[in-house]
Amino acid sequence: MTLYKKDLISINDLSRDDIKKIFEVTDLLRENIRKGRNLLKGFVLTNAFFEPSTRTRLSFESAMLRLGGSVISFSSVEAISIAKGESFVDTIRMLDAYSDIIVVRHKYEGAAKLAAEISEAPVINAGDGRNQHPTQTLVDLYTIVKKFGKIDGLNIGLFGDLKYARTANSLLQGLAIFNPSKIFLISPPTLKIRKEIRDLLNLKGIKFEEHDDVSEVISELDVLYVLRIQRERFSDPLEYEKVKGSYRVTLDLLKDVKDDFIIMHPLPRVDEIDYKVDGTKYAYYFKQAKYGIPIRMALLTLILLGEEVL
Amino acid sequence: MTLYKKDLISINDLSRDDIKKIFEVTDLLRENIRKGRNLLKGFVLTNAFFEPSTRTRLSFESAMLRLGGSVISFSSVEAISIAKGESFVDTIRMLDAYSDIIVVRHKYEGAAKLAAEISEAPVINAGDGRNQHPTQTLVDLYTIVKKFGKIDGLNIGLFGDLKYARTANSLLQGLAIFNPSKIFLISPPTLKIRKEIRDLLNLKGIKFEEHDDVSEVISELDVLYVLRIQRERFSDPLEYEKVKGSYRVTLDLLKDVKDDFIIMHPLPRVDEIDYKVDGTKYAYYFKQAKYGIPIRMALLTLILLGEEVL
Amino acid sequence: MTLYKKDLISINDLSRDDIKKIFEVTDLLRENIRKGRNLLKGFVLTNAFFEPSTRTRLSFESAMLRLGGSVISFSSVEAISIAKGESFVDTIRMLDAYSDIIVVRHKYEGAAKLAAEISEAPVINAGDGRNQHPTQTLVDLYTIVKKFGKIDGLNIGLFGDLKYARTANSLLQGLAIFNPSKIFLISPPTLKIRKEIRDLLNLKGIKFEEHDDVSEVISELDVLYVLRIQRERFSDPLEYEKVKGSYRVTLDLLKDVKDDFIIMHPLPRVDEIDYKVDGTKYAYYFKQAKYGIPIRMALLTLILLGEEVL
Repeated sequence: MTLYKKDLISINDLSRDDIKKIFEVTDLLRENIRKGRNLLKGFVLTNAFFEPSTRTRLSFESAMLRLGGSVISFSSVEAISIAKGESFVDTIRMLDAYSDIIVVRHKYEGAAKLAAEISEAPVINAGDGRNQHPTQTLVDLYTIVKKFGKIDGLNIGLFGDLKYARTANSLLQGLAIFNPSKIFLISPPTLKIRKEIRDLLNLKGIKFEEHDDVSEVISELDVLYVLRIQRERFSDPLEYEKVKGSYRVTLDLLKDVKDDFIIMHPLPRVDEIDYKVDGTKYAYYFKQAKYGIPIRMALLTLILLGEEVL
Repeated sequence: MTLYKKDLISINDLSRDDIKKIFEVTDLLRENIRKGRNLLKGFVLTNAFFEPSTRTRLSFESAMLRLGGSVISFSSVEAISIAKGESFVDTIRMLDAYSDIIVVRHKYEGAAKLAAEISEAPVINAGDGRNQHPTQTLVDLYTIVKKFGKIDGLNIGLFGDLKYARTANSLLQGLAIFNPSKIFLISPPTLKIRKEIRDLLNLKGIKFEEHDDVSEVISELDVLYVLRIQRERFSDPLEYEKVKGSYRVTLDLLKDVKDDFIIMHPLPRVDEIDYKVDGTKYAYYFKQAKYGIPIRMALLTLILLGEEVL
Repeated sequence: MTLYKKDLISINDLSRDDIKKIFEVTDLLRENIRKGRNLLKGFVLTNAFFEPSTRTRLSFESAMLRLGGSVISFSSVEAISIAKGESFVDTIRMLDAYSDIIVVRHKYEGAAKLAAEISEAPVINAGDGRNQHPTQTLVDLYTIVKKFGKIDGLNIGLFGDLKYARTANSLLQGLAIFNPSKIFLISPPTLKIRKEIRDLLNLKGIKFEEHDDVSEVISELDVLYVLRIQRERFSDPLEYEKVKGSYRVTLDLLKDVKDDFIIMHPLPRVDEIDYKVDGTKYAYYFKQAKYGIPIRMALLTLILLGEEVL
């Protein structure tokens, strides 16, 4: 199996071997980031962002441009004007006529899948509702592999909003492709993982525990993956304030962690990680962000050219 | 005569031979879309969109980038801030200093012509008020030629708003460069073609008939070109609803059409063509949209490099 | 000393030799603007515009693209959404991960300096509050040098708002690196230069005079640099109207100027220069705008590649 001309809608579209191949190409491109600079010459990528996400948009643009490819984009503001009357289906047909690959961000679950059914050009899901964000998950898994050489056998904690954050949803499905020792799900009671994810973990035989106090388990963890808790998830502002205070990573919390322990975060960070933590050896979130470019470079290369080229 | 370093403001700027040349280069570039990928290296195109049009903007960008050229753009939102105090003339002078070719979209008739008078760099009109949209007309004419091998001798219907739609205006002037057998102008009584277009058709000796019921003439047509009817053209909402219902293409309407008959539409389509029509062999509007890139590639090549290069 | 991998935050970061070197490279690139078209292939520039400035954004984009480099941008609209919760520091860290050089525009003084401290990639200040706009100053100095062959020994007038305009602030510091014969500071009494600039001119031994009537001194000037006066600087609208009328360049004002005299303006111009002046040989502001591209091309080349390459 190969990724050539395939869509990437869910992290579950990928096998363990596919992910290994993407990581190999990522390593190749990182060794010499200028090496790939003519690979995608003449190819055009469309960033179809029906929902704003400057960070994700810029990371796809930077990746495509570093490979010598070109980018056309529209933002959510223009998407509104496109949407005025025109169907999503017609919009995707137009973009298909204009480009070689389409990156879709949309607030509704399933939008990227629908786009992939319409478009001849491959479609990459850059986030659909609270559902999937597979390229973020690839970055997350790659970060863990670069640190520990593996995912199997690790203790991995997810900390914060596990119910609405698509990053958590997508990462848990990604981890289930591997064999972590145990997953620790640490969240306020109202923001626990959804039933379908619980079912998936059980089906795959992944051991997991649910907690609401991170300090009880932090010394067992190899990785703590922090997720923002958004005010709008709470009807009671007081409840939000209380939760917010307890779901923060501070220096104090890090007293008894393992020596190799790392903290990850998909960014942007608001105040769920104290700035003072940035200076510790555990802070891995900026390194993780940096991997966003080579991972996407590898993915674009494999989808548009196949693996023979490299 | 040559297009080298010329402006393209109106479809009437082009002779029959110019159009033939553009179509030849379009065919050449379509045969191998990657062939042209270094042609415009080092050239910069400015998309000066004083009025929003994501579709047209993206098609010029994709065309320029596929030729190895570069694009700088500003959207209508920024145009408002530019306009704050600065004259259109000064803005165009700035863009002239920054780029090799300027694509202008503006809500006022004549804006592109004024820009062309100021700028040393060639200017392409991407739509000025209800006046002209010459690159859309080139796409339209090319679509007809690719289907029928000619424009001369065909029965061509325009259906919908013929008064305010610049696409209709521009296409009728384009058709008048050729010798269609007859043009059928099918519109509500309040949205008939303007006097200057009627005068032009008479002057060029083009036969035309005006109708308000498409079902009376559809079996005679080779091409039906559908145009959106906009609510804001009607003071009485009831009148709009009535008209809207009658100016739709449905499967039912297509029962007695010629075997080679095609339906065209500049897109975006709202509900003037039933989605069920998309699956018929008559639906040519997505193919038409696809021609938007190679036509613009040919035009940019001929204006920036001349014909000797190819 | 060399500019290689250096930040450019203030015009004072540059020595007289640095400026000479930038001008030499500018001349080289102007001789054959297509010569540099592969120089920055594979490099990515980020336009981080936290405050809108279409003109400056487009000039950096055009310069980078003409050198074969790539550009990713975000506008002030998106900056607001980025800013929602995320710190400026985190945003710059992300951009540092995504690009090879960062151009920062911000409404607060010192923002570019802060960005430079955080980012490993070089940072260019494209305007911070009322403080500095060093690339505009380079364009201004280059324009004078191209006309007169020198800056030393000239009589240079600055005319308009000298208190709030960062262009004036930055240019005066730039002139102080050279030895102009005399600087004439012509402004309404309420818009005189700030104390720190007055101190700097005194420190550097630059002779200057303050005036409020341009007609008294215009015949002595080699250069008149015109700056817009903004309505919002006046609490009394009547006061603004009075001042506005007196701080305009008209044909009438130009009767007794030197033969070699030139008028400059950073643009956009509102009505502080009569359009009739555009046709005179003194009008140098559009030529000045044109120099914006090659100056920035030279700067990007020297920062990203060093001087050995050319």
